[in-house]
Amino acid sequence: MSTAKLSIDLDALATNWRNLDTLNSGETAAVVKANGYGLDVARVGHALARAGARNFFVAAAEEGIALRRALGPDLGISVFSGHMEGDARLLKEFNLTPMLNSVDQMLRHIEGLPGHSFGVQLDSGMNRLGMEPAEWAALRDIALGQNPVLIMSHLACADEPGHAMNALQLKVFHEMTEGVEVPRSLAATGGMLLGPDYHFDLCRPGIGLYGGRPFGDALPVIRLELPVIQVRDVLPGESVGYGNSWIARRPSRIATVAAGYADGLIRAMGAGINVYVGDTPCPVVGRVSMDLITIDVTDLGEDPLSLSLINPQQTIDLVADAAGTIGYEILTSLGHRYARSYSG
Amino acid sequence: MSTAKLSIDLDALATNWRNLDTLNSGETAAVVKANGYGLDVARVGHALARAGARNFFVAAAEEGIALRRALGPDLGISVFSGHMEGDARLLKEFNLTPMLNSVDQMLRHIEGLPGHSFGVQLDSGMNRLGMEPAEWAALRDIALGQNPVLIMSHLACADEPGHAMNALQLKVFHEMTEGVEVPRSLAATGGMLLGPDYHFDLCRPGIGLYGGRPFGDALPVIRLELPVIQVRDVLPGESVGYGNSWIARRPSRIATVAAGYADGLIRAMGAGINVYVGDTPCPVVGRVSMDLITIDVTDLGEDPLSLSLINPQQTIDLVADAAGTIGYEILTSLGHRYARSYSG
Repeated sequence: MSTAKLSIDLDALATNWRNLDTLNSGETAAVVKANGYGLDVARVGHALARAGARNFFVAAAEEGIALRRALGPDLGISVFSGHMEGDARLLKEFNLTPMLNSVDQMLRHIEGLPGHSFGVQLDSGMNRLGMEPAEWAALRDIALGQNPVLIMSHLACADEPGHAMNALQLKVFHEMTEGVEVPRSLAATGGMLLGPDYHFDLCRPGIGLYGGRPFGDALPVIRLELPVIQVRDVLPGESVGYGNSWIARRPSRIATVAAGYADGLIRAMGAGINVYVGDTPCPVVGRVSMDLITIDVTDLGEDPLSLSLINPQQTIDLVADAAGTIGYEILTSLGHRYARSYSG
Repeated sequence: MSTAKLSIDLDALATNWRNLDTLNSGETAAVVKANGYGLDVARVGHALARAGARNFFVAAAEEGIALRRALGPDLGISVFSGHMEGDARLLKEFNLTPMLNSVDQMLRHIEGLPGHSFGVQLDSGMNRLGMEPAEWAALRDIALGQNPVLIMSHLACADEPGHAMNALQLKVFHEMTEGVEVPRSLAATGGMLLGPDYHFDLCRPGIGLYGGRPFGDALPVIRLELPVIQVRDVLPGESVGYGNSWIARRPSRIATVAAGYADGLIRAMGAGINVYVGDTPCPVVGRVSMDLITIDVTDLGEDPLSLSLINPQQTIDLVADAAGTIGYEILTSLGHRYARSYSG
């Protein structure tokens, strides 16, 4: 076996969903876009459905295909990007509910799929997806007459609880939906943690399910183990890797493992990250290359057969910190060469 | 259609191979690891075989499966990571030639697959893969008695032609292979451009085939077109995207497109990159999110239906510059939600 092992704990995923659900008196859905945050939308969707989730969110209609096949006909699948040109066939065939983002999308939907389930996405200030207040004001009566199943918006700064933007978006969302009888949704993981004012009728956790910040109580869901190809002695003054970017200052023992940035181990993480044997951290040295990473195992005192990059000690968030990004990107970048094993 | 379009020009790929081949009086192989640098190893391998390549290199034995199926039985497939524990079945079934990197691998190979084709990888100074000079000195006669098909090494600084490491590795490789009658290989794309001294019997271009630096004459191989979900007016003082990271200073028109870091559009590229409508650059504003990017299209004077992120004007290398990485990582990160179309 010359590829790394990615272990995915579906029980931990389900527990994270249940723990988030206990925070919420309304419905708790699940966001499984980007192939279930890189972990396989079919397996992730199935595990969350068993845990009790009844509604799921994906980014694009195309993502609904595999999820529908995994979930069967009865559970809800909503599409954040709404109803785009050419989507009608997929929306219909796989019974997907678009969150309509604009007047254009509303017209396209009513014309192309009259009577087909839809929701409405409102922009409460993030200026990314959703109808603007003026647009919504003009369209609101027509839209409500078509019986939307959900009215939603999305918070821009929910991972910063003290940010003034949260209260501002909450206020705008209230203003835009005042008097509406349709179920409402504002919060993803971060919004759920802001408290009940943000919960409305349905919460849509994503990152918290997969073990990431800002859900501090999240159980880690993935482990990544990198197999050693070979170990060598390197003398002081010798360099390791591309660009001679690391020079040994002492007699060193260097392990080369079979994974690299083509496996989503972001190149930027190179300089600052450790890889573990048990509890012992071993620093990555030299540049991360496409298929290989070099690690200083001198202080281990023995040659390891494999080293762990992601584990309960070094979570996706800590790996992300080393790479200057966020845990979400670590998850969605996980590559396709890993030998994946699922438990739970 | 709510996913972005990735167009892959296999004719350009083949032309790049032919143009690199004209620099080389020996054999020109092709490196197609990491799923053909993210572009589909079967299609890439097939196109390069039609162009004339007879030997291919992958990183791990597992990568040889799809390539062997695409190429048929007659062409050579070599594995850089060599013969790892548990690889024997794959190496045999798919007729893969491991480049043995250590005494351990040599023993494993001779014991597990006696008579099966192999090569030897030597470390000429990069300290990443390959046998050390002392290791090789001890093993050389035994190894040569087993009839290796290739002896290779890899350059650490070939993309910096003036780097002293190049001449040093060349000297070490000569010393380690003096008097050996087996075909030798030292150069990948960068090494090919260093001149005939580096070419030996076989060159192994990778990145140059796919249109990247340091092969300045490379034809671009990919284009990436991002569909617009919606366009909105944003007033001065309003923010766009997560963390309110961008604030409008003038009345602005903001397009949201359907692609993000889950598609390999590295989050770090956010602040400095443009997206194009024809020749007109439009700046990305706000953070790149998982499935969405926001773009200032104010100066276009019209709302585009799509914008181009990778094209002959903004190559993978320029995108990489904006993200603080290299073109290789842009390629191997390309995501799986794209609608991919191949020409040639």
